[in-house]
Amino acid sequence: MSSDEVIRIASPADFHVHLRQGRLSALVTPHVRKGGFTLAYVMPNLKPPITSTEQALAYKGDLEALDPDVEYLMTLYLSPELTPDEIRKASRAGIVGVKSYPRGVTTNSDGGIESYEPYYPVFEAMQEVGMVLNLHGEIPSNPATNTCVLNAEPQFLPHLVSLHVRFPRLRIVLEHATTRAAVETVKSLGDTVGCTITAHHLSLTVDDWAGQSFHFCKPVAKYPDDREALQEVIREGHPRFFLGSDSAPHPPAAKATATPTDACAAGVYTSPILLPLTAHLLESFGALDKLEGFVSTFGRKFYGKEVTGTESQASVTLRKKKTTVDKVWALETEEVVSFWAGKELNWSLE
Amino acid sequence: MSSDEVIRIASPADFHVHLRQGRLSALVTPHVRKGGFTLAYVMPNLKPPITSTEQALAYKGDLEALDPDVEYLMTLYLSPELTPDEIRKASRAGIVGVKSYPRGVTTNSDGGIESYEPYYPVFEAMQEVGMVLNLHGEIPSNPATNTCVLNAEPQFLPHLVSLHVRFPRLRIVLEHATTRAAVETVKSLGDTVGCTITAHHLSLTVDDWAGQSFHFCKPVAKYPDDREALQEVIREGHPRFFLGSDSAPHPPAAKATATPTDACAAGVYTSPILLPLTAHLLESFGALDKLEGFVSTFGRKFYGKEVTGTESQASVTLRKKKTTVDKVWALETEEVVSFWAGKELNWSLE
Repeated sequence: MSSDEVIRIASPADFHVHLRQGRLSALVTPHVRKGGFTLAYVMPNLKPPITSTEQALAYKGDLEALDPDVEYLMTLYLSPELTPDEIRKASRAGIVGVKSYPRGVTTNSDGGIESYEPYYPVFEAMQEVGMVLNLHGEIPSNPATNTCVLNAEPQFLPHLVSLHVRFPRLRIVLEHATTRAAVETVKSLGDTVGCTITAHHLSLTVDDWAGQSFHFCKPVAKYPDDREALQEVIREGHPRFFLGSDSAPHPPAAKATATPTDACAAGVYTSPILLPLTAHLLESFGALDKLEGFVSTFGRKFYGKEVTGTESQASVTLRKKKTTVDKVWALETEEVVSFWAGKELNWSLE
Repeated sequence: MSSDEVIRIASPADFHVHLRQGRLSALVTPHVRKGGFTLAYVMPNLKPPITSTEQALAYKGDLEALDPDVEYLMTLYLSPELTPDEIRKASRAGIVGVKSYPRGVTTNSDGGIESYEPYYPVFEAMQEVGMVLNLHGEIPSNPATNTCVLNAEPQFLPHLVSLHVRFPRLRIVLEHATTRAAVETVKSLGDTVGCTITAHHLSLTVDDWAGQSFHFCKPVAKYPDDREALQEVIREGHPRFFLGSDSAPHPPAAKATATPTDACAAGVYTSPILLPLTAHLLESFGALDKLEGFVSTFGRKFYGKEVTGTESQASVTLRKKKTTVDKVWALETEEVVSFWAGKELNWSLE
């Protein structure tokens, strides 16, 4: 579906995005479509986190009020309140997944989990009803085990493997993979295990966030060879690896400024430029022909959200035309700065 | 020379410090003694860099005008202008060392660190006259070789080894080591190879500078196991490992604030609290009994600057008394924020 200068993508789907609450949500939720996407898989790490079907449906209503033309797939936050009964109820209500955050590793994860075993009955119920388990795949830093932000993901991978072995029919997504080790592990597992990759991790390495907090996110970008592994698996068109932007807005002041005692907020924001950015990056490493698979087909197939005939009008057209990315996106008093601000992209949305 | 509550240290010596120029120098140079030190080994990376004997002596005069009670050991910046004749002249004038920075090394070749070869006649002359070669031991980042800020130091170590093999009598100091690999390599080499360790690298790991630019410096702090190796070699009292603070002041705004396109300045500033901080940290990992060796005896012996009887009045007394570190140090319009700002140290200078 492409000529040299135009690419049409059927219903791009972002399988990992943070749409926040309140005024910030009003600013960023419309950016899903602005970035070329018609489906948003919505993270539940609000304050308080989304732990019940009622909360998730209320949140979905809030998002639909902000932009009704996006399909929002909702998730619950894995926590002790979540029971097998709640899982069955959530599934009946159309909630798609459950997100697991290890305690303390990212924004609003203080309620995160320390051990998966207590949740086995929940996972059993999820496997029965066909809900998806979304894993933030990092273990907390611990000097005693030499664990830090650089190896937190590789050290998590045995947990992914053992969950898959114990629940082979449970669909599991390792979210925002950043390492060669993660790519290889996911590839080695069965068809029920998928993996999201962000756009920004296709561009960044550790050098880019050293002293540059606008590029600081969790998981942090790793070594050049890790970035290469992410690019390779997309270039080969592996159908279990698909886009989840992990687009995470923070006010510019929270991103820009550390104090001697407080760090900057973690998160890279890509929503308003997501499809052009992804096209630009895939082109840079020779994978433009895999764009539709990566941003639409593969993830939709994994989630059973294939594009049907009636949805084909939602396809999006990219044209090869340079644009400079806006420096600030604002709504009333809210502002966000996107990744690639002030830089050029080779592709534009029509 | 210690009781339970008091430690006396003979003439503490900081074998790697940045004293800058102009108004910033007027602010930070007196911090050498404020931090408990009576000797400063002064880095030459000014604008323009110190590449001649005349420049170095003029700079030394500037520093002595700011605080005459510190012994300043001067260095030259390794660059193509530096000739064997200039080395002999510098040595006669009392200049102690030559500092090599990787970027300077790469300007005249595409072979990166291989371009030490043009400097072999300079190193030969340095070996003859007894000058010290100070190495910033990192190679430039390069995605093609998976080189980034995390492995730039380990990948440099073969160059240290080959320089030592070729110039076995040349005293070489690997500056601000941050990795277990560096510690092991230096230990494996002969007595002409020393190694400085900063105070802040005894405290920080990569987690501490992730999103926290006040803790961002080059070389970056690495894994917990690397920090452990730095602590171990001090705990064992190895005489070729000694303090070089690499204390590097920047205006608070340059440290605090990234823009979407510009990173923060690299550098951690420790001068005004250096001896109490080092005592605090060594105590935290059971090496307080090695404090005098680490901050004075070992480095002085390596450089042939042993404390003589007449200098003993320059000894410094630490008392076990909690103090809170000042948040800002200022002189007229200049400001700097030190490491540990607002936090408590267990030791104070008398």
